[in-house]
Amino acid sequence: MVMNKETDRSVHMSKAARTRGHIIEKAAQLFNQRGYAGASMAELMTATGLEKGGIYNHFVSKDELAIAAFDYSIRLASRRHVRALKGKQGSSEKLQAIVAAFADSFEAISAWGGCPLMNTAIDSDDAHPALRARAQQAMDDWRYLIRRITQKGIKTGELVPSTDADAVATIMIATLEGALMLAKLYGDRTHLDRAKTHLNIYIDSLHAPL
Amino acid sequence: MVMNKETDRSVHMSKAARTRGHIIEKAAQLFNQRGYAGASMAELMTATGLEKGGIYNHFVSKDELAIAAFDYSIRLASRRHVRALKGKQGSSEKLQAIVAAFADSFEAISAWGGCPLMNTAIDSDDAHPALRARAQQAMDDWRYLIRRITQKGIKTGELVPSTDADAVATIMIATLEGALMLAKLYGDRTHLDRAKTHLNIYIDSLHAPL
Repeated sequence: MVMNKETDRSVHMSKAARTRGHIIEKAAQLFNQRGYAGASMAELMTATGLEKGGIYNHFVSKDELAIAAFDYSIRLASRRHVRALKGKQGSSEKLQAIVAAFADSFEAISAWGGCPLMNTAIDSDDAHPALRARAQQAMDDWRYLIRRITQKGIKTGELVPSTDADAVATIMIATLEGALMLAKLYGDRTHLDRAKTHLNIYIDSLHAPL
Repeated sequence: MVMNKETDRSVHMSKAARTRGHIIEKAAQLFNQRGYAGASMAELMTATGLEKGGIYNHFVSKDELAIAAFDYSIRLASRRHVRALKGKQGSSEKLQAIVAAFADSFEAISAWGGCPLMNTAIDSDDAHPALRARAQQAMDDWRYLIRRITQKGIKTGELVPSTDADAVATIMIATLEGALMLAKLYGDRTHLDRAKTHLNIYIDSLHAPL
């Protein structure tokens, strides 16, 4: 078989893209478990099965890899929201689906080393401005999703008009992330179950009287 | 002045204890800001103003120093609770004092690099078993404090008998710690103010009807 130059280049690029994707995936889990500062080059080499040069072929620095890995982790988390919201009707049902998607994923989140958003927020807040900006952007997106669902519910009359959509986002995210921290610390999902029950009562309390 | 052997030894020990205390205090803040893995020996030397040997004179390892520093940070946080509870009557008032003590300390906690308990829980959960055990113990103490206050309130009839004291501890701590994470991420205490308002409504909802 004769490959022309173009085919050859596209095969080459696709292999490079595959290797890059492989590095990002392995680094994402390692960074999430060990922290960006905590993960050493030796651990990155073990996790990816590549030499230092093989990694630096694809990323100019550990920082560049850290940011690509964070973006990858956030994409995974966002997909969980998209799946959870599919087919849900009304604001209450949607808000409760977001709570359930988080709380019910404890085992998966735990195996991944925790919530990448919280880990990066804690890990980067005093140490890594570029990652911190990334974490803020991802948190903005999550808050925007909750706020938009809440505002829609106020508009349709499903939720009480005085509902503060920004506060709903804060309370839901704070309670879920704090409960995940407790659940991970003890290896006990009870804390997330309690958060879910509490938030469902809270979401019910936003309902406009029929 | 002639110093006898005993005086000499006590002066010597007191200087050693002072140096040890100085190292712990500086290390506690550095570890809290940079993480245990993230804080380098060079940074520890800069923060304490001591040479490597001067630090290792007092601690056999970075791990031993990390644990002493964590204990120191937790003692500071516990004192905040003791001060907040002083003179408070009844379970509701005490629970609200715990919420206020945390939420109103945002600037101080922030300057210190965040809540040492959450930082250590996140930092250590997959990487540092000894610190993780320490964080569990400190979290147990905080949960026990809230549980005991809640149980007292049930016993005196102030709170509804069906109140789940364990769940109250989870919800209060999760909401406060999660809101602190948000407040620190954005440098905006609004998230803690919302958590405080939300938790005060929650605590009110536990009140037995008069």
